[in-house]
Amino acid sequence: MTAPLHVIILAAGQGSRMKSSLPKVLHKVAGRSMLHHVMDTARTLGAEGIHGVIGHGADQVKAVTPATDVTWALQEQQLGTGHAVAQALPAVPDGAVVLVLYGDVPLINPETLVALVSRVNQQSLGLLTVDLANPDGYGRILRNEQGKVIAIVEQKDATESQKAICEVNTGILAVTSDHLKRWLPQLSNSNAQGEYYLTDIIAMAAGEGMTIEVAQPSHEQEVQGVNNRLQLSVLERWYQRCEAERLMTEGATLADPDRIDVRGNLTVGQDVLIDVNVVFEGEVTLGNNVSIGPNCLIRDARLADNVTVHANSVIEGADVAEQCQIGPFARLRPGTRLARTAKVGNFVETKKAEVGEGSKINHLSYVGDATLGRNVNVGAGTITCNYDGVNKFQTVLGDNVFVGSNTALVAPVSVAADAVIGAGSTITTDVAEKDLAVARGRQRNIKGWKRPEKKA
Amino acid sequence: MTAPLHVIILAAGQGSRMKSSLPKVLHKVAGRSMLHHVMDTARTLGAEGIHGVIGHGADQVKAVTPATDVTWALQEQQLGTGHAVAQALPAVPDGAVVLVLYGDVPLINPETLVALVSRVNQQSLGLLTVDLANPDGYGRILRNEQGKVIAIVEQKDATESQKAICEVNTGILAVTSDHLKRWLPQLSNSNAQGEYYLTDIIAMAAGEGMTIEVAQPSHEQEVQGVNNRLQLSVLERWYQRCEAERLMTEGATLADPDRIDVRGNLTVGQDVLIDVNVVFEGEVTLGNNVSIGPNCLIRDARLADNVTVHANSVIEGADVAEQCQIGPFARLRPGTRLARTAKVGNFVETKKAEVGEGSKINHLSYVGDATLGRNVNVGAGTITCNYDGVNKFQTVLGDNVFVGSNTALVAPVSVAADAVIGAGSTITTDVAEKDLAVARGRQRNIKGWKRPEKKA
Amino acid sequence: MTAPLHVIILAAGQGSRMKSSLPKVLHKVAGRSMLHHVMDTARTLGAEGIHGVIGHGADQVKAVTPATDVTWALQEQQLGTGHAVAQALPAVPDGAVVLVLYGDVPLINPETLVALVSRVNQQSLGLLTVDLANPDGYGRILRNEQGKVIAIVEQKDATESQKAICEVNTGILAVTSDHLKRWLPQLSNSNAQGEYYLTDIIAMAAGEGMTIEVAQPSHEQEVQGVNNRLQLSVLERWYQRCEAERLMTEGATLADPDRIDVRGNLTVGQDVLIDVNVVFEGEVTLGNNVSIGPNCLIRDARLADNVTVHANSVIEGADVAEQCQIGPFARLRPGTRLARTAKVGNFVETKKAEVGEGSKINHLSYVGDATLGRNVNVGAGTITCNYDGVNKFQTVLGDNVFVGSNTALVAPVSVAADAVIGAGSTITTDVAEKDLAVARGRQRNIKGWKRPEKKA
Repeated sequence: MTAPLHVIILAAGQGSRMKSSLPKVLHKVAGRSMLHHVMDTARTLGAEGIHGVIGHGADQVKAVTPATDVTWALQEQQLGTGHAVAQALPAVPDGAVVLVLYGDVPLINPETLVALVSRVNQQSLGLLTVDLANPDGYGRILRNEQGKVIAIVEQKDATESQKAICEVNTGILAVTSDHLKRWLPQLSNSNAQGEYYLTDIIAMAAGEGMTIEVAQPSHEQEVQGVNNRLQLSVLERWYQRCEAERLMTEGATLADPDRIDVRGNLTVGQDVLIDVNVVFEGEVTLGNNVSIGPNCLIRDARLADNVTVHANSVIEGADVAEQCQIGPFARLRPGTRLARTAKVGNFVETKKAEVGEGSKINHLSYVGDATLGRNVNVGAGTITCNYDGVNKFQTVLGDNVFVGSNTALVAPVSVAADAVIGAGSTITTDVAEKDLAVARGRQRNIKGWKRPEKKA
Repeated sequence: MTAPLHVIILAAGQGSRMKSSLPKVLHKVAGRSMLHHVMDTARTLGAEGIHGVIGHGADQVKAVTPATDVTWALQEQQLGTGHAVAQALPAVPDGAVVLVLYGDVPLINPETLVALVSRVNQQSLGLLTVDLANPDGYGRILRNEQGKVIAIVEQKDATESQKAICEVNTGILAVTSDHLKRWLPQLSNSNAQGEYYLTDIIAMAAGEGMTIEVAQPSHEQEVQGVNNRLQLSVLERWYQRCEAERLMTEGATLADPDRIDVRGNLTVGQDVLIDVNVVFEGEVTLGNNVSIGPNCLIRDARLADNVTVHANSVIEGADVAEQCQIGPFARLRPGTRLARTAKVGNFVETKKAEVGEGSKINHLSYVGDATLGRNVNVGAGTITCNYDGVNKFQTVLGDNVFVGSNTALVAPVSVAADAVIGAGSTITTDVAEKDLAVARGRQRNIKGWKRPEKKA
Repeated sequence: MTAPLHVIILAAGQGSRMKSSLPKVLHKVAGRSMLHHVMDTARTLGAEGIHGVIGHGADQVKAVTPATDVTWALQEQQLGTGHAVAQALPAVPDGAVVLVLYGDVPLINPETLVALVSRVNQQSLGLLTVDLANPDGYGRILRNEQGKVIAIVEQKDATESQKAICEVNTGILAVTSDHLKRWLPQLSNSNAQGEYYLTDIIAMAAGEGMTIEVAQPSHEQEVQGVNNRLQLSVLERWYQRCEAERLMTEGATLADPDRIDVRGNLTVGQDVLIDVNVVFEGEVTLGNNVSIGPNCLIRDARLADNVTVHANSVIEGADVAEQCQIGPFARLRPGTRLARTAKVGNFVETKKAEVGEGSKINHLSYVGDATLGRNVNVGAGTITCNYDGVNKFQTVLGDNVFVGSNTALVAPVSVAADAVIGAGSTITTDVAEKDLAVARGRQRNIKGWKRPEKKA
């Protein structure tokens, strides 16, 4: 098939059973809206044109879908699937193949669609069907003795023997634009709902002696639509299960394939270990032998080979080099860059922090807007005072600096290589190489102090 | 049916297979004891009397079930269900309908019971039966050709064809107190266990020409009893699955319906997002567009519209206004009240803290017994020293106060509006409006300090 | 059977579908390598000899399996299971019973093997078979009319009726070493793979008129092999499910039996409560009435009766006495010993810390290399400065010491009983009994301070 492909995505429905102020197609599976999933699938197919038919919440849909490659068609009244396709059709050129997808059927597999579209030509229409254990409520596929599809019969019109048919119509089909432009004006709304059904073109095609070529998905979840949040959750979990199996195939050990969530693109090296309840968001890359402890959240980060992240850590926007140790209870915020073998320990927050090789921030610290050299030791309870209420300032610690515990570094401030800060100091001026800086009150021990008593 | 309803709850069993020092009925499903569930169900039915039959651990059961509306009957020896009901019957008036429930069958649905009780009158007894895929071990329901129940046959007495019957007796029944008072004294303990079986009244009713009216639960879990902790866990998860589906129906998106726990009453607005592994306890209300990150525990709290709670936070006894941002790793303790757009960040603990609109406690702080005005900025590492070992004292920070990092505020202390505290200060006396307060040692930089060497 | 038992464990395979740099048998289930599981099972059987046949990654396997009771045999080329067993056989004495196990079939139950081995004598070979719902791909067990096993037919050689047989060969078998030494040299590699199959000895045994005695596992997971990480995850979850059921049987309530992980030995008392997503590693003992909150990680620890661990805590190498309260967000590191009723609260890290009865470290502190007496109160933000960059030093706090908040204790330092440390102090010298020690700057309040302005 060499005709250009145009994909029409029906996305005009309200989805009242979602009980939401969002249009239905904006609800998310794995962190991306359902419509976004379908559009990405259309792009994967190399579609020349992508046409979104929108209606309910049209402006909202367009606003959060800033796709420059999509042509929007407004369906002001929801008069059926045939009517919806008709809104988009003027923008589709003659001689194209049109593939109709649905914004609330998010997980259709591109390979399934390639097979479907490949069956389309002037003499044949491609129809996606699926075998369901319980076909109740769906339009059944009628085939003749040669196995050729001859019609679709709706549930209400089906005989008992037709109701026993398990192959049903998914609504997804592909056909040339020429046929479609000829057929759509002929659709009738003389039915109980008063709607124009796209499905009726199957009968028209058959009536003209065209063949109905069928393709089927590998899994029925590909063609499952979402009308409520329970159905949304079913697809969410199926997507996550598929991701889990992909990761295991690629060389990751998952402590529990049913307790991992990937919302974005997760790339894994070999011999990666992912413990229970880890959530990945955005673009995350894990090198070889990376180990992630339980209950971590990792978003938009790169962890190089042999990095270990301990339990209950949160990492976002960080770039972590080989052999670093993180957590437990670490929180790396955007702009954190750890050089190899650096350590960030418990109850430590870093933000816009460059940490040199072998440096350690092991306990209860906040390091923000800071540059640390190599082999720096940041004591427990150290705070970089980077903010004066309106501006942010930098802290710079040279190689081998030792910062004693419970220290406040009032930025902008610089501590040169090999310097030492005494515990409990508030450092407000720069410290030269190898200096010891101390800034604290003198200790007084007072005899016989009377301890407070309980007040009435 | 206008006769008053009396519910008798059998709760005298030991439950030795629980391997517990607690009486069986005190074990919890979703944070409430099983007996508590059944009593609440009885109340839902508008019972005029609730009668608890207790035996093993009777004092313990009464002590943790401080219900003023329950009449307790002691069954000193466990001589069977008929004997148990007989202990409670003296307190039931004539002319009542008696519903017999079980303290270890916690999840029976009130609607199921309404249907059951509505079938009871002088000529008919109501019996709850259930169809089981594997009826092994249960008493089978025998019906005549008209479909009327005529008897219950126990497993050991059943013929092969009777064993094939899948409809079984649940033990839950309803009947007038008049019949019951007449029948119970006629029960015999001439059986292998030497017990008086309540079930034997079915035969008596049938023998008197009464009809046995049957009701069935919507789900078999409603009539499942608990004899060990595995069965307890099955009901726990079923309860949680039902809660998850309720929340999704009401407009919440759950990242995983199998990874949420609700132990109490959770009320959700529209478009609430609940990530994986969130636990709710007590009374929790979530407004519209509230988002809860993974691995959070929320107990007895109100979160208003558009509040975001980030990963791994623990909230208890807090009242959080619109658009607040909490966590990750925040811990809000009882008496925390956040005004709108306030922020509480990582490794921050609040307790009895009133935080004004737009104020921020972003990092590594403890704020207790404190009142913060609007737009206060609490620097990282700030501690309100509210406790002298015996008494607690208040800290008050006015609007727009800026507290530098690593500051100790020794309560009672007050910092007036627009004042600034220098980083690293220990503030022991009040600070006036717009003042800068600093309390720290002077910095000394010492040349050529010899760093410590490794000891042998 | 009185013949000594020798277990040969085949562990030479590469496992290329694991996509790993580790030899397959080193991949872990529940924290122990698969080979380790099988060896422990062999030990449970009282084997006189354990023979590991290794090939791919032989050195790596030996290095991480420091078992003194294992005889290693190197199979340089992988020429089939018969060839593998032959490598180990020279080290097996005559007159022994040989049990053949597989390093990638980790969860075989000792009881199943006892039953299998008990069937072996000079006239009979023991074969472990299993009934599979889908036997596709496995060798089917052929039995004669008397039910005696007569042969194994491989999938490719099976007739349609043979393919319908659901009883299949597991590969696990037991036979006398005398027979084995006679048979193995007779094996042929004239087959599609060019390998020597151990299974062929079944036909030899039958041909000699020996009986093939069959045993079966209680669960098919016992005989499932691991060829990829998906299969590894299936066994991991099955193992964990079994552990969960064991714990419930022993008296623990699990909030969700599908959300607990035990990697090591967990011993529980009565009425233990374990909330969702708790991970146990190593040797962990929980006393009666211990309660563990959600999302905790506990490794190599002993928690005595009535200890409560709140949400999101991490405990490793700690010994916790009765009635202690830990967390939420506590991190106990190795060498932590808490006496009864001690409390360690949120954002607190302890390490090599002995904490006396009733003492409290409730908030945001680091206590390491320290000894605390009874009823010590450590204020929020307290840091023991135990490290000077090369050496570690001790902090000692006597009974009833009160450490004010935001205090740095510069070790080595000792604070005697009943002493008080003022908030915000850096304590560098010892404090005597009942003294008050203060070490902080004097507070200055500066009028009319001009706050910083936003920089361009």
